[in-house]
Amino acid sequence: MPDTMPDSIFIHNCTLITAPGTTLLQRAWLLTKGNVIAAIGSADSLPPPETTTATTIIDGRGGLLAPGLINAHNHCAMTLFRGMADDLGLATWLTRHIFPAEARHVNEEMVYHCSKLAAAEMMLSGTTTVADGYFFEGQAAQAFVETGMRAIAAHGIIDFPAPGVPNPTQNIETAVRFLDTWQGRHPRITPAIFAHSPYTCSNQTLQQAKELATKRQVPFFIHVAESRQEQGMIQAPQGTSPIRHLAALGLLDPGTICIHGVWLDDEDLDLLAGNGAGVVVCPQSHLKLASGMAPVSAMIERGIKVGLGTDGCASNNSLDMFREMDILSKTQKIHTLTATSLPAAQALTCATINNASLLGLGNIAQLEPDYKADLILLDMHQPHLTPCYNQDLLVYAASGADVQSVIIDGRLVMRDKKILSFDVQATMEEVHRLAQKINAPQK
Amino acid sequence: MPDTMPDSIFIHNCTLITAPGTTLLQRAWLLTKGNVIAAIGSADSLPPPETTTATTIIDGRGGLLAPGLINAHNHCAMTLFRGMADDLGLATWLTRHIFPAEARHVNEEMVYHCSKLAAAEMMLSGTTTVADGYFFEGQAAQAFVETGMRAIAAHGIIDFPAPGVPNPTQNIETAVRFLDTWQGRHPRITPAIFAHSPYTCSNQTLQQAKELATKRQVPFFIHVAESRQEQGMIQAPQGTSPIRHLAALGLLDPGTICIHGVWLDDEDLDLLAGNGAGVVVCPQSHLKLASGMAPVSAMIERGIKVGLGTDGCASNNSLDMFREMDILSKTQKIHTLTATSLPAAQALTCATINNASLLGLGNIAQLEPDYKADLILLDMHQPHLTPCYNQDLLVYAASGADVQSVIIDGRLVMRDKKILSFDVQATMEEVHRLAQKINAPQK
Repeated sequence: MPDTMPDSIFIHNCTLITAPGTTLLQRAWLLTKGNVIAAIGSADSLPPPETTTATTIIDGRGGLLAPGLINAHNHCAMTLFRGMADDLGLATWLTRHIFPAEARHVNEEMVYHCSKLAAAEMMLSGTTTVADGYFFEGQAAQAFVETGMRAIAAHGIIDFPAPGVPNPTQNIETAVRFLDTWQGRHPRITPAIFAHSPYTCSNQTLQQAKELATKRQVPFFIHVAESRQEQGMIQAPQGTSPIRHLAALGLLDPGTICIHGVWLDDEDLDLLAGNGAGVVVCPQSHLKLASGMAPVSAMIERGIKVGLGTDGCASNNSLDMFREMDILSKTQKIHTLTATSLPAAQALTCATINNASLLGLGNIAQLEPDYKADLILLDMHQPHLTPCYNQDLLVYAASGADVQSVIIDGRLVMRDKKILSFDVQATMEEVHRLAQKINAPQK
Repeated sequence: MPDTMPDSIFIHNCTLITAPGTTLLQRAWLLTKGNVIAAIGSADSLPPPETTTATTIIDGRGGLLAPGLINAHNHCAMTLFRGMADDLGLATWLTRHIFPAEARHVNEEMVYHCSKLAAAEMMLSGTTTVADGYFFEGQAAQAFVETGMRAIAAHGIIDFPAPGVPNPTQNIETAVRFLDTWQGRHPRITPAIFAHSPYTCSNQTLQQAKELATKRQVPFFIHVAESRQEQGMIQAPQGTSPIRHLAALGLLDPGTICIHGVWLDDEDLDLLAGNGAGVVVCPQSHLKLASGMAPVSAMIERGIKVGLGTDGCASNNSLDMFREMDILSKTQKIHTLTATSLPAAQALTCATINNASLLGLGNIAQLEPDYKADLILLDMHQPHLTPCYNQDLLVYAASGADVQSVIIDGRLVMRDKKILSFDVQATMEEVHRLAQKINAPQK
């Protein structure tokens, strides 16, 4: 289906949440024009005259219209490995299952189809923007273009032979070529750099990767402080924490997004806050791999910007950001043994406004005029969403399956749970075919 | 719709999971006769001739047919309080929000409609049996009869003026009347006794309640060891743990089901194991109220039977048992900092076989001939369930929203996501009406 610029969509008869923590607007409406929100209103405010000429009119049937969710950390193509290796600790999982499977099965075709599958899962569960990082990232970017997702597509850099970059000495020049190809190519795609981690990249590689990201003004991602063991695995004097190591290398600044940030001491927190670096946590992956619980409330108190992602679905195993918000809030309560920690609205903030800001996409994730039209409509006529007293329901009771229609960049990509922008059935068939080569435990 | 005894249902073209930890049967079929499973088969085994005369034939369309899930702890009528008081600690939540709301809003009509709403939510998410405990439990039992749920309906006993029992000195005789009314009355309903907790019941009340349950051979439930503070709130010598207190009162035996069991030391675990008492954990409620994490792996190692429930949805806020299994497994991994803890199949065991056994319903929760026909059929043609390597997917990737059809006691109560057994729309309207009286924060 062609990715043509839409004209105008008018959605009425809905409840509207403009941003986390705001009062719900009842009997509301919203009008898009091109790829932005043109106007919103509620109850007694009359829609503007243009609504009568909207290309598409959607009766919200009393549903909840909300900003599309942002998944700030994913390895989309890893949908192929969902359920291949469960109930294993990070080191075993990564070195004995994931890395070997990647060496064997990751290729351009796999990344393309499996990223499309992830896009389908994300759209169906209300995610409109993803920050992805993987090998053959050009294929992932192509998948996001074709599916209609908004994406940060981050090229992975690692200091061992990797899919697409068999000779690691060429990993920086390969990254340069990726940026050359994708910078300015498509309005929904932002290319970026992803240095795998301080334990799989040399200090030189880390610095070169960061310099490249800075020079090209693209986001720089790195997995850091995920496990307690990481400190012993980095190229740094004994006792140096991974965060202090990055700081010493000059890697922490507002363009750096630290993924995980589970094991942080007070000095690490001060360094992150002082340098303006962001942190994206993936609470379900942290639980499932028994990595730990990130000190999110402590980060927020210090003014560190905290975002939220699912991680690849081999360690989750779901890309549903509603589930992730729920678990973010609940695990912080148990981490601090304080039930008032990380209230629902804060989880929603992480998954929307904070993620948008961290990823440098400031004009998405709120329903206000002139913001990008990235919207989700939820079906509220369901027993598990009854009664609905306030927006906290989105975090503690809703799930991705409640999302009925999705608009990304002003384009209706899903309506009544049917994806309109691409052939999901064909993608599932391709992934089933690829999955036949995977040696997963039968049970 | 009348609750007539069904004749026979034949389901074919599905994958079948007979019990947790078993290999999936491919190209399988299942035949029910009356309220039990008559036969199952797969691939080359031919269905028996009776299938041709089955009253209902269901094409599984490649879906997964699994035992219905059991929710071993719920306060169904509390659906009215979903989202009324979030992000609060147990003591504040209970004494300043829930108890006052119950005093004001709980009546026969509320329990009836709100329990029906819970039944709808549970069926839609694949739960076929619930263990409920609340006030006006006769109304809850009536709701389960009418909706088609299988239920343990436990009459609540508490030593202060409660809805339905304004004078607590009459709480035992009221319980006797409840058992008189419901024992043997309906094949799907098992009445039981629920003593609220050792901090809200006197020692005499606890013993009288347990004696009644023993005499009438019905399950005995009690909330116990939920919070760290509980030890200081019970009628026992200083330093006595709640579990040792129950043991000293003679309350621990195989007919007792301890709800929560979060704060247990080695001696408590030995007492539970030695006396054969069961424990039902509610991990999402434990997280949300910041109560703690129950030592489930340690209980299982000692041979204590551990079941799983959602708790009432005011402290969860979902009755989706798929979500609960996922969180059970993930929180145990973080509790023990060991990713191999509580693997997926064990979570499924808790939600099916263990719950059935704890509740004294041994012949449900497995798909084998002569077991009760309590079945759920999941739609597997979805991106988030692709690929499907094994049954762990049920725990880590599936959700209640994937359930397409539900059979309880041989009766098709839901087909293609539509509940057939009662008018859910009317129930939602009744609950919306009741909810207008609730003073919940606007946000």
